[in-house]
Amino acid sequence: MDNRYQRGIAIMTEMAGDQGRKAMEGVSAFAPDFARLIAEFGFGEVYDRPHLDLKQRELITLSSLITQGAENQLPFHFHSALNIGYTLAELIEVTIHCAVYTGFPRALTALQVLQRVYADREAGKLEV
Amino acid sequence: MDNRYQRGIAIMTEMAGDQGRKAMEGVSAFAPDFARLIAEFGFGEVYDRPHLDLKQRELITLSSLITQGAENQLPFHFHSALNIGYTLAELIEVTIHCAVYTGFPRALTALQVLQRVYADREAGKLEV
Amino acid sequence: MDNRYQRGIAIMTEMAGDQGRKAMEGVSAFAPDFARLIAEFGFGEVYDRPHLDLKQRELITLSSLITQGAENQLPFHFHSALNIGYTLAELIEVTIHCAVYTGFPRALTALQVLQRVYADREAGKLEV
Amino acid sequence: MDNRYQRGIAIMTEMAGDQGRKAMEGVSAFAPDFARLIAEFGFGEVYDRPHLDLKQRELITLSSLITQGAENQLPFHFHSALNIGYTLAELIEVTIHCAVYTGFPRALTALQVLQRVYADREAGKLEV
Amino acid sequence: MDNRYQRGIAIMTEMAGDQGRKAMEGVSAFAPDFARLIAEFGFGEVYDRPHLDLKQRELITLSSLITQGAENQLPFHFHSALNIGYTLAELIEVTIHCAVYTGFPRALTALQVLQRVYADREAGKLEV
Amino acid sequence: MDNRYQRGIAIMTEMAGDQGRKAMEGVSAFAPDFARLIAEFGFGEVYDRPHLDLKQRELITLSSLITQGAENQLPFHFHSALNIGYTLAELIEVTIHCAVYTGFPRALTALQVLQRVYADREAGKLEV
Repeated sequence: MDNRYQRGIAIMTEMAGDQGRKAMEGVSAFAPDFARLIAEFGFGEVYDRPHLDLKQRELITLSSLITQGAENQLPFHFHSALNIGYTLAELIEVTIHCAVYTGFPRALTALQVLQRVYADREAGKLEV
Repeated sequence: MDNRYQRGIAIMTEMAGDQGRKAMEGVSAFAPDFARLIAEFGFGEVYDRPHLDLKQRELITLSSLITQGAENQLPFHFHSALNIGYTLAELIEVTIHCAVYTGFPRALTALQVLQRVYADREAGKLEV
Repeated sequence: MDNRYQRGIAIMTEMAGDQGRKAMEGVSAFAPDFARLIAEFGFGEVYDRPHLDLKQRELITLSSLITQGAENQLPFHFHSALNIGYTLAELIEVTIHCAVYTGFPRALTALQVLQRVYADREAGKLEV
Repeated sequence: MDNRYQRGIAIMTEMAGDQGRKAMEGVSAFAPDFARLIAEFGFGEVYDRPHLDLKQRELITLSSLITQGAENQLPFHFHSALNIGYTLAELIEVTIHCAVYTGFPRALTALQVLQRVYADREAGKLEV
Repeated sequence: MDNRYQRGIAIMTEMAGDQGRKAMEGVSAFAPDFARLIAEFGFGEVYDRPHLDLKQRELITLSSLITQGAENQLPFHFHSALNIGYTLAELIEVTIHCAVYTGFPRALTALQVLQRVYADREAGKLEV
Repeated sequence: MDNRYQRGIAIMTEMAGDQGRKAMEGVSAFAPDFARLIAEFGFGEVYDRPHLDLKQRELITLSSLITQGAENQLPFHFHSALNIGYTLAELIEVTIHCAVYTGFPRALTALQVLQRVYADREAGKLEV
């Protein structure tokens, strides 16, 4: 574990709050090296790079996840996107824009994930 | 053809300059309804909506295209992205960020498209 | 809302009966513009175009959904396909044909969705 | 080689004429077992099955290929589709319908392949 | 049903034990031809071919399933992979290697499926 | 640049010989950070990990690339696979096995890339 790991955990916490820590713990318990590489490389190295800010990086991430139909990983990032300053209207708009490029089925699947994440936050099931 | 069509052509021209007009003419000659729907629905209706600005929409578009390996449509949008204010360093960074989410092969394919588009612009083959 | 919207709702109702209305209401409540664009553009504009009839359009739709692994959107369209005149044997055959082109995993996933939709119809859980 | 092989070659010839034979020869020279499995399983076994006719199977095939962005395999099947009775207007319409489900980039890529195939047929470069 | 069918069932049983039989029964009851083609072509013909052994074929299969995000079909093959001699550490490593090529979201989704399969085996819910 | 970078370059050279160096130089000249991350993270960190050997990692890589239709990145890895000990018959067999899981179109596209790579090696255009 090097310095990238600490930066990665810090960025994940900035994005997803306690959800970030929980997500990592589940992966760490089963596959510690996988968890370490996500933190070190994904968040600690790439997210920490210059040229794009965190909000732009989240927009890229969401668009990639919607396009590949990554239902399981979308909740973490819709939650993060709301935490770092995107409004619900903006995130709905991301799914609408993606419909043009990846088709309505994946856009609609993403919209329904967003709807669940938003409801869970409103109901206090996800730390805001 | 309704009002959306005119707005769509205007947005495409703002994004891609003369490349926008040329791209449309090629499609129009073979399949006018397809060209009309791109202009009307894609650019005239969706790009013109509120909540996200043009630079954000281009970031979503590029991320979706990179993720689906859409080599043929990436040149138009890398060209547009440079026209509307993204720097080369920022667009390279988009491909790096995408590597985390869609893997290095599609990120590298996109980088190589960007390299060709940038060289064509420098060589005066694409209107800047 | 223009005329396309009314045509879109009519086509969705022709295809999916009460399921069409319910599906739209869920989306409308959370993201009315997304729902409107599905109805207006997808069903009202594209499905209503000439050159291909509704049964051919449903065959294209199912093949695209199976190929992209769109599990969430397949139930609506398998249900619609049965409503507009496809037999169960024909729809099973669609999944078999797709296995050649998109591989057995996505074909099998689609077959299992079809099995659930068919059972729900037989059990009266989906309006026929 | 069993009976399925002969049926497969016959179906490929019905679909693509001399292009079918040429496509098979190229694959056979390098990887005879691969070519044999395409003929035996794909065309000889699946295409020959009941419940869907050849035109329906080609519609499924095209929709799957468009959705997965299979540029290399689309020319054979657009050519076949024109041979077995689809009009150019119908095939353009297939790409338009697919835009709703798989997004405009893959639909547009397919349209451009269709444009080349159609031009090659008109120019006598592909046996009609 | 020809000889390939018997070989296919034998290979599936070698791989997945009783899970193989159960998986086939579910498909057979609803779509006997689909089940027969999986057994005959997939397992009876392709898995039985020379040049690659069963462990290599399972590695290819897992990598393809992870890359296409085939969550529903991964449990059968992670279970089979453990049965035919892969260790848990090796299978976790497959998901890590795939992260480079298909991105972290699909790799992580696969890891979480592996975690469930492994837990089910430990709990005696899957025949080892 | 840390130690991972040197290991990455060494592994790439072991795999692809002079092609590895050339591929890196092209990327480095345009986007040095992208090239560095491929070498450091992809080859230096992941390929260098325990649990799977280089031949197994190449099998996973090829299967992922075939499945995602990564035509541009397949030549490097088919070339590497032949260099590190796979026979042509084995690599053809990989494409056949993938046909079951990702469909014939992507398998056939990969086979045709392999055919070109093999011919280039035989003609002395690629260092063996």
